[in-house]
Amino acid sequence: MAGPDIEALIRQLAKLPGLGPRSARRAVLELIKKKESVMRPLIQSLERTADAVKICSTCGNFDSQDPCGICLDPKRDRSLICVVEDVADLWALERSAAFRGLYHVTGGLLSPLDGVGPDDLNIAGLVERASADGVKEVILALSATVDGQSTAHYLADRLDRANVEISGLAHGVPVGGELDYLDDGTLTAALKARRPV
Amino acid sequence: MAGPDIEALIRQLAKLPGLGPRSARRAVLELIKKKESVMRPLIQSLERTADAVKICSTCGNFDSQDPCGICLDPKRDRSLICVVEDVADLWALERSAAFRGLYHVTGGLLSPLDGVGPDDLNIAGLVERASADGVKEVILALSATVDGQSTAHYLADRLDRANVEISGLAHGVPVGGELDYLDDGTLTAALKARRPV
Repeated sequence: MAGPDIEALIRQLAKLPGLGPRSARRAVLELIKKKESVMRPLIQSLERTADAVKICSTCGNFDSQDPCGICLDPKRDRSLICVVEDVADLWALERSAAFRGLYHVTGGLLSPLDGVGPDDLNIAGLVERASADGVKEVILALSATVDGQSTAHYLADRLDRANVEISGLAHGVPVGGELDYLDDGTLTAALKARRPV
Repeated sequence: MAGPDIEALIRQLAKLPGLGPRSARRAVLELIKKKESVMRPLIQSLERTADAVKICSTCGNFDSQDPCGICLDPKRDRSLICVVEDVADLWALERSAAFRGLYHVTGGLLSPLDGVGPDDLNIAGLVERASADGVKEVILALSATVDGQSTAHYLADRLDRANVEISGLAHGVPVGGELDYLDDGTLTAALKARRPV
């Protein structure tokens, strides 16, 4: 109906996370209508990123340089390493601007059922970095799921000899959250960790 | 945080309809992770479409050929012209496979408040096509909004001398719809247009 080129483009876009056939079609129509002002610049931007993007050999972040901008930034606190499972989590923490240390991306969680073992993740690199001089604390910012918590336990074991403090994110009521809508587990955790006002 | 190239790409993707900053970020992460298997083919597909896409000079559809595949298809019923406001509507009708005639895209609706007059839309081309030999019916498949219906009235006036039948889409209960959730206007229209079973 819309020609094989356009149909192929819609199918490819629809496979991206967060997009489906309907939104892909809308996006493609918009791109075609604004070919010179939107579509061509987008193609250039995609090409520039595809050519330039590198995986930071230190922390696993994506950037156009290796080591990445965060690892190179002299203003970062090098005594803190925050462990995340995915670059998406690193970006989320950066947006919050609440953390000024360094990161380490494991590239996933341990999951015996899915056949993901310690050798499939970037754990050796973390142990090595944590053992280096000057590192004081490793923050395990992993998902509060079964896989996330068992990975956190495994990492805590492996980091035992590194002589660093090991911490995890606090559980509690999300800021702006209503108690009524919270699950029992979160409420219990928030009660247990209650603090003087 | 993620390098200027990646940030620029996220901003560009986030501007597309159906995408926001969050889904654009997820899409970019997926693209970077699958650079060779997803990102490069997507760039090629975008380039191919940008180079090939044409606006059909007869009906206004987007295709890699002009006239478009629908206008060239000898199996299409040339006595029927379905008028739509946007290529998206043409594609929607094609997906339903319920129409085997030709289309005409006006490129929008008349809207005095937004300064859109008859000369801003492809109306002259429609009058010319409708006046040609062999055209029996023009179906006005425009939105059931104020602008859509006033555009339909205007088009019906302009097509008065073309000696064709002029019809509009039926109003009624959407297939699969529950009466309880329908607005009064649709219920009233469905009652008025009731049919013997």
